[in-house]
Amino acid sequence: MINVILETNHRDRIERLQEALNKAGITAALIQKPRNVYYYAGTGQPCNLWVPADGEPILFTRRAHAMAEAASWINRIHPANSFQDMLGFLEKAGLSPSMGSMIAVELDCVPYKIIDRLQQVLGGVQFVDLSDIAMKQRLVKSPDEIAKIREAGKLWTLGHEAILQTIRAGQTEYQAAAAMEHACRFNGGDATVWFHRWDASLPGGGIVASGPNAWVVSGHAMTVTGVGMNPALPWSASERVLEKGDLVVVDYGVAKNSYHFDSARTYCIGKATTEQKELWRQLIELHFRVINRVRAGVTGKELYQEAVDTAKEMNLENYFMGVGRDRGAYIGHSIGLEIDEWPVLGPKALEPLPVHAIITLEPKFMIPGVGGVMVEDSILVKKDGYELLGTVGHELFEIG
Amino acid sequence: MINVILETNHRDRIERLQEALNKAGITAALIQKPRNVYYYAGTGQPCNLWVPADGEPILFTRRAHAMAEAASWINRIHPANSFQDMLGFLEKAGLSPSMGSMIAVELDCVPYKIIDRLQQVLGGVQFVDLSDIAMKQRLVKSPDEIAKIREAGKLWTLGHEAILQTIRAGQTEYQAAAAMEHACRFNGGDATVWFHRWDASLPGGGIVASGPNAWVVSGHAMTVTGVGMNPALPWSASERVLEKGDLVVVDYGVAKNSYHFDSARTYCIGKATTEQKELWRQLIELHFRVINRVRAGVTGKELYQEAVDTAKEMNLENYFMGVGRDRGAYIGHSIGLEIDEWPVLGPKALEPLPVHAIITLEPKFMIPGVGGVMVEDSILVKKDGYELLGTVGHELFEIG
Repeated sequence: MINVILETNHRDRIERLQEALNKAGITAALIQKPRNVYYYAGTGQPCNLWVPADGEPILFTRRAHAMAEAASWINRIHPANSFQDMLGFLEKAGLSPSMGSMIAVELDCVPYKIIDRLQQVLGGVQFVDLSDIAMKQRLVKSPDEIAKIREAGKLWTLGHEAILQTIRAGQTEYQAAAAMEHACRFNGGDATVWFHRWDASLPGGGIVASGPNAWVVSGHAMTVTGVGMNPALPWSASERVLEKGDLVVVDYGVAKNSYHFDSARTYCIGKATTEQKELWRQLIELHFRVINRVRAGVTGKELYQEAVDTAKEMNLENYFMGVGRDRGAYIGHSIGLEIDEWPVLGPKALEPLPVHAIITLEPKFMIPGVGGVMVEDSILVKKDGYELLGTVGHELFEIG
Repeated sequence: MINVILETNHRDRIERLQEALNKAGITAALIQKPRNVYYYAGTGQPCNLWVPADGEPILFTRRAHAMAEAASWINRIHPANSFQDMLGFLEKAGLSPSMGSMIAVELDCVPYKIIDRLQQVLGGVQFVDLSDIAMKQRLVKSPDEIAKIREAGKLWTLGHEAILQTIRAGQTEYQAAAAMEHACRFNGGDATVWFHRWDASLPGGGIVASGPNAWVVSGHAMTVTGVGMNPALPWSASERVLEKGDLVVVDYGVAKNSYHFDSARTYCIGKATTEQKELWRQLIELHFRVINRVRAGVTGKELYQEAVDTAKEMNLENYFMGVGRDRGAYIGHSIGLEIDEWPVLGPKALEPLPVHAIITLEPKFMIPGVGGVMVEDSILVKKDGYELLGTVGHELFEIG
């Protein structure tokens, strides 16, 4: 019943990690975050993956040993319920880390209590953050990963078609989200969105923000956020009823085979006004000016600057990427096994993008009293340019 | 657009927390986990909530100050982007904690790096775990919380009806999950499931495990897990096509207004055999023997023991709550703002359950070569008994 996808390039992942560990003088990585365990070992089961800077990695399974073993390409796999069990095994094999050695763990994701327990068991080692190394490695996608993100993009297109066919004035934002979500789930989507950040989440069907909800900025780290279903969930689709003339932003990250495709389009309930059409035209002009600068070597800072300059030229800088104090200094981000991979493409992104990064660009204008418009594409960075991975057009879609 | 639900009993939550802090000699709690921030402050926005053992709590908003302020019942609300900003404010107000004082934070949920930064800023304080205190408090539900969980239960019933009406032989498990999910989302569900554990997640539509998938135990902390869509997501619904004669377990936690209702039923594609019917009859007999022991004062250990004793009496102990090594020593858990609240009802649950706890009981038999059956109910603990919060019957549902 389990889809085991074995690929030769997966073994390279461990080797490239080991190179990075050696370069940084790190003795070993202890990988605990399920997304990273899957990336390096091929299973999402609860495991601890021990990767020494030199030598063979060992996958310690906490539960479901048989399923982990069937899925993983790691050769040495052992059950170990606890850090004590794991250390016992390493000691017997003469592999336990010596006093003072540096061990890389996901310090920005793993709870304090777990690292603290690990510290007590391993005693005398120094922990350094693994996320920087792992996220940099995950930024460059393999052909297999690119294919998976492209597949997820096809689901987005089906979701878009469901939106066109089902939503109308009188329905709520959450019913539009339901249409998007159902099309993606019924056609094989994962029905889950993974975040790198510990405290983020996104309800099924993503963000649907209509009318005045499109210029409210919630604190969740996205600019067009919607206001959500209730104060405990103050982002994404809400109970607002769609009205004739509304602009409706749909921003949805859909995963298939655990890889995310992230895109947004804006819909108009009924015929768009001249003003709405003009705002959309300007957004798309800005979007493609930025897209046209995408190629290996460009920095997030440059892409962001192009967007800001264009918004200024259009006299729309006060409505670009938010409203008032609640504006985001970014134009996109990387995607992959998580929806919020690094880097965020903004003024601090000074490193050139590598070939086969997959990024999103997601400009938006939010004009209080008028409406919000947003477009987002998932884009493959190529040596001399880019490729849009989705298939939905760039018009302002009029519904009904 | 924002549903502000103000309730008098919400202010009690802070007072009861302060009592617990005082009792434990803790100077203050610094609440960072969004679920707890919402519970104590009424907003799910990114905030740090400072609750001194004595005196007024202060809500520090990291983003979306206006939305947080509109939703929260806390009187003192200030923007503070960083721990430095927050400490600066506390210092000015003469409220900064003194050297050696104990501060409670969610050590089992907040990433190491964040607590480490907090330690540098607060310097010289001692951190203790807040989760034990908060989870114990959250165990007892208010009338408002009970009403919300009951509402979520109505969505489960709609999902169940969608399953009955739409699934059939030839469809996949994930399409059954899509039907469940769509009914809940289209009718106002949150379309998100919140876990306390840092590394858990559940795709939309929950677990659908059919035929042989119902006796495979994945490592995710549930017994009937299904095998999932791919090795990165090895639990929940899979691509398996439903066949005539299959038993299909559907285990779904649905949230509405941020409160979870958790239930499971078993369906049969076509007419059930005598053997399948008898297995179901035994499961329901066991289930109600356990349910009939529910009342304030009973322990999780006692409920679990009743289930184990009954399974033994039925000669089904080898198929109870799992298969072989992968068996779970529990019979249910608490639910609320998270699907996996404490306590887990098993041999280690020695504390008497309080009045107005809401628990699930979820027995299952998994017989390799025959099939899996599971039933789960969300149950209110009352002074002298119990109340089932759902409305779906306890038959083995035959489809088609």
